[in-house]
Amino acid sequence: MEGSPQTRSSPSPDHSQRNRGFQDVHAMVFVGFGFLMAFLQRYGFSSLGFTFLLASFALQWSTLVQGFFHSFHSGCIHVGVESMINADFCAGAVLISFGAILGKTGPAQLLLMALLEVVLFGINEFVLLSLLGVKDAGGSMTIHMFGAYFGLAVSRVLYRPQLEKSKHRQGSVYHSDLFAMIGTIFLWIFWPSFNSAPTMLGDGQHRTALNTYYSLTASTLSTFALSALVGGDGRLDMVHIQNAALAGGVVVGTSAEMMLTPFGALVAGFLAGTVSTLGYKFFTPVLESKFKVQDTCGVHNLHGMPGVLGALLGVLVAGLATHEAYGDGLESVFPLMAEGKRSATSQAMYQFFGMFVTLMFASVGGSLGGFLLRLSFLGSPPDSQCYEDQIYWKVPGEHEDEAQGALRVEEPDTQA
Amino acid sequence: MEGSPQTRSSPSPDHSQRNRGFQDVHAMVFVGFGFLMAFLQRYGFSSLGFTFLLASFALQWSTLVQGFFHSFHSGCIHVGVESMINADFCAGAVLISFGAILGKTGPAQLLLMALLEVVLFGINEFVLLSLLGVKDAGGSMTIHMFGAYFGLAVSRVLYRPQLEKSKHRQGSVYHSDLFAMIGTIFLWIFWPSFNSAPTMLGDGQHRTALNTYYSLTASTLSTFALSALVGGDGRLDMVHIQNAALAGGVVVGTSAEMMLTPFGALVAGFLAGTVSTLGYKFFTPVLESKFKVQDTCGVHNLHGMPGVLGALLGVLVAGLATHEAYGDGLESVFPLMAEGKRSATSQAMYQFFGMFVTLMFASVGGSLGGFLLRLSFLGSPPDSQCYEDQIYWKVPGEHEDEAQGALRVEEPDTQA
Amino acid sequence: MEGSPQTRSSPSPDHSQRNRGFQDVHAMVFVGFGFLMAFLQRYGFSSLGFTFLLASFALQWSTLVQGFFHSFHSGCIHVGVESMINADFCAGAVLISFGAILGKTGPAQLLLMALLEVVLFGINEFVLLSLLGVKDAGGSMTIHMFGAYFGLAVSRVLYRPQLEKSKHRQGSVYHSDLFAMIGTIFLWIFWPSFNSAPTMLGDGQHRTALNTYYSLTASTLSTFALSALVGGDGRLDMVHIQNAALAGGVVVGTSAEMMLTPFGALVAGFLAGTVSTLGYKFFTPVLESKFKVQDTCGVHNLHGMPGVLGALLGVLVAGLATHEAYGDGLESVFPLMAEGKRSATSQAMYQFFGMFVTLMFASVGGSLGGFLLRLSFLGSPPDSQCYEDQIYWKVPGEHEDEAQGALRVEEPDTQA
Repeated sequence: MEGSPQTRSSPSPDHSQRNRGFQDVHAMVFVGFGFLMAFLQRYGFSSLGFTFLLASFALQWSTLVQGFFHSFHSGCIHVGVESMINADFCAGAVLISFGAILGKTGPAQLLLMALLEVVLFGINEFVLLSLLGVKDAGGSMTIHMFGAYFGLAVSRVLYRPQLEKSKHRQGSVYHSDLFAMIGTIFLWIFWPSFNSAPTMLGDGQHRTALNTYYSLTASTLSTFALSALVGGDGRLDMVHIQNAALAGGVVVGTSAEMMLTPFGALVAGFLAGTVSTLGYKFFTPVLESKFKVQDTCGVHNLHGMPGVLGALLGVLVAGLATHEAYGDGLESVFPLMAEGKRSATSQAMYQFFGMFVTLMFASVGGSLGGFLLRLSFLGSPPDSQCYEDQIYWKVPGEHEDEAQGALRVEEPDTQA
Repeated sequence: MEGSPQTRSSPSPDHSQRNRGFQDVHAMVFVGFGFLMAFLQRYGFSSLGFTFLLASFALQWSTLVQGFFHSFHSGCIHVGVESMINADFCAGAVLISFGAILGKTGPAQLLLMALLEVVLFGINEFVLLSLLGVKDAGGSMTIHMFGAYFGLAVSRVLYRPQLEKSKHRQGSVYHSDLFAMIGTIFLWIFWPSFNSAPTMLGDGQHRTALNTYYSLTASTLSTFALSALVGGDGRLDMVHIQNAALAGGVVVGTSAEMMLTPFGALVAGFLAGTVSTLGYKFFTPVLESKFKVQDTCGVHNLHGMPGVLGALLGVLVAGLATHEAYGDGLESVFPLMAEGKRSATSQAMYQFFGMFVTLMFASVGGSLGGFLLRLSFLGSPPDSQCYEDQIYWKVPGEHEDEAQGALRVEEPDTQA
Repeated sequence: MEGSPQTRSSPSPDHSQRNRGFQDVHAMVFVGFGFLMAFLQRYGFSSLGFTFLLASFALQWSTLVQGFFHSFHSGCIHVGVESMINADFCAGAVLISFGAILGKTGPAQLLLMALLEVVLFGINEFVLLSLLGVKDAGGSMTIHMFGAYFGLAVSRVLYRPQLEKSKHRQGSVYHSDLFAMIGTIFLWIFWPSFNSAPTMLGDGQHRTALNTYYSLTASTLSTFALSALVGGDGRLDMVHIQNAALAGGVVVGTSAEMMLTPFGALVAGFLAGTVSTLGYKFFTPVLESKFKVQDTCGVHNLHGMPGVLGALLGVLVAGLATHEAYGDGLESVFPLMAEGKRSATSQAMYQFFGMFVTLMFASVGGSLGGFLLRLSFLGSPPDSQCYEDQIYWKVPGEHEDEAQGALRVEEPDTQA
């Protein structure tokens, strides 16, 4: 294997700029993911609370795991603002997987999943970034694809044929959709920082932020257009706006630091918003009926397909890289090409290979995780109690939402 | 015309500080404006969703328009963190106009309005900043006055004599007021960054942030005091707190980077909060009954009058500028004075003239926009369906708010 | 008294990094504290509105008071980003006190309390940091202990034996708990910036942020574990998650900038989450029944006990400081030790003494404040109208929550 070990982000003297990136990424993980998943009418406590629990656990555990792979020197793990950003990235992948199984798993199951997923995330990231020399700053592959397909594999193994018993709780109510928009908007505004947090400071970081920004504006417009178009009556669907509008951030995760150009970013974002919206409308039902994958938040549409698109876009843009186009910047974006150890075509092939490695780790790991999660003492909720806070939380009883649902909770599983 | 072309913010080597400003401004535009307008009981999806749509569109379009005016060199538009900040400023003006017509227009109308407004914003900004050498860092004139009077002119042309048919939906409910407070608080905390984002880095930027911070604390106190005073029974009105408390940010938009002094900022903020609260209480009803302008969010009180005050304050503070008071800083705040091309009095007159240019562009442009928006194929909502999400959105039907309103939506326009 | 005057943060040439810290602290104070207290079902307007009012007032007043103590030179108070951070810290202490008396006091009472508390905060801070040379960057003593015991003393004096008349409004509803989680999460994510905002830039600041981050992840995990454990039926309690999870930030407020080590931070956070959760479960009822202290938000559990723990941890870590462990950093963390004026043991004793000074100032000052607040013209709400927005706010009447409560407001105090 050619090349020296590389990591997503390397220590730099200018800590203050990294700090800025850290706080933005931190806000995305806790505010963004947490509220985005709070759209369910009776699962807001769990969406926010378990996000909080899972992310806190993942931050600690991935600091150890990633530290072992990337900054283990003379018996010590070195920590700093870079390790905090990397840990947040790993927590992001865990929360994406959580989105696929949201409402159908208990906290013990989720912690076990995180325990396994953080390790596999660390290995996959190490293989791609350090061994294969693949570039993936914003994580189209290592974060979005990995998190999505890991979660979908878990969901496949945990398939519940009787899930329609909880169907009446699977939707949103008016206010829960507004809470979810908090998540959407925080993810949207800080995504330029997310993709650029681990890049080389200076020009590369600004290029990454700009490309992400243009891609997101384009995916937002295409999502609104498509949502009205596929709705039948011309009306918009909140699920699309909350999710597909963000696909522009996912799709440039690999290529935003490369010479994608603003126009390329706009086209990529437009496509990602389109694919994601169509996915919510047409593919999610098929995923459940044919492939027996119940994807609560539609992570396949927001992170899975746009992640694959983003990986392929990375292959394309890497394959087109020339010394002329990058100039001195080639050193930081494609160090192996700058050192003459790789051609652009060879880098593109490594990128392509990295995508399959990620798919393999995610699907095999997720399936394994799914079987572990079926251990009965982990306390999976019954089919009739999915998407329901009251199994795990003391819920204030005076509210109108509870008034309707309070009695159901005590009823046996045989309820239809 | 004396002087070389100037822009709101010029490229600087210290990108990291600009980045910081960009993210704060970005949060204000999307989180702040979006949630501030989510106070209506049945228009939260539209307030948040159309803010998202309009701002995404405006960011792209104004990058092109502003780029053409400010950074078009040898056939290319140069982009960077400065262009991102400038585009967000323009999106802010569009969202202010949106506030005036909130609930009474459909998305196609809004996009057409943004298409026109972004161009006029760019021209007006170019005339003021580059041709006239007017200073307006935080945009009391170019953003607040322009956005407000443009929107009010549109609203005047679209006057609906039968709007009382939708009166029952024009207020807030308890939770929608809490969502709106998210907007208020995010606007409030990041306003120092907003006003200082485009200023020269260093002392000038800190002075701008400090002045804005003092002005906001003063407008908050005067708003609370006035709101209790004019309420009749001594109780506070959420509409005042959500809006007028922010007037302190608007009023120092022009002068915050000048030698306003903390005491001057406190006085300015106090006045702005007072004027704005009195406007909501006494002037908004007159605006509708006498001037036939229906101003949903009261942008005249928050952005219009405080913007005019801010412009006049800029005239005053610019007219008092001396080489002694500014020292080396004169170069960055008033470059034409530093170069000896203008006296303080002359600068003050240019500032004054800039205010009328802005009023002219905004009112003529807005009226033109209003007539365009009356094109019937743009799908304006009927008088009985204003402030109603269900025309444009699939709304979850299980909620108590919907239960009351669901049937009304299907009723014909003749309902009283 | 040895040593030259020291302040929490000293002016530095690198303003941009301080600016970053300021905005994060600002967000914590206004978004974090405001929404955290919005958990009450019918007191959301007051929680958010009075936070806004109190903090705006405290920022202005403490700029003057702290300026007089720390930056009063030749007749002028010098302001800048450091004074803005220090003023926000003081506002934080006032809001902690507000938490203890939330729902039981009117705005005039609150402003009077702030008027007094800001002065005492300034004196206490001056005595500790400047006279005694105590270190307390993140304010375990000067902010959390001071704010908590000041508020608890006020609450003791204002004890209401008939408070059960408002018991039915003292809990949360489903949505108000979600709003409160906005507060929790914003406090959580920005706490590393809070503790490190006033520290010396560079290594010391990164160490502080890292230690705080680890401590918070640990307190979150221990809070979830304990909450499920003490709940009886294994279910989680939102009150614990919203509050106790944050205790990890409080407990390292003094020691985070010292050589606490990540492991030390994890242990401290674990303990703080445990103590805080147990406090909510077992000690709050005792505090009311035995000590006649009604602590609405449980500030004793979140700020009081973890603050004391944090002060003691500071004693311990300061006592263990050596020139070897800190190297050149000793100069910035313990300047008096670096100059040879104090031994580690002596510094530890000063830290310990500082804790008692703070307790004394807080409890005597708070008691005095309580007696002042009993002045009848300040308009305290009657026992049957506590935790009720409608006394102070025009509340939109159409909502289901109001429908139940609207009539009660007009009823006389004799209602049971």
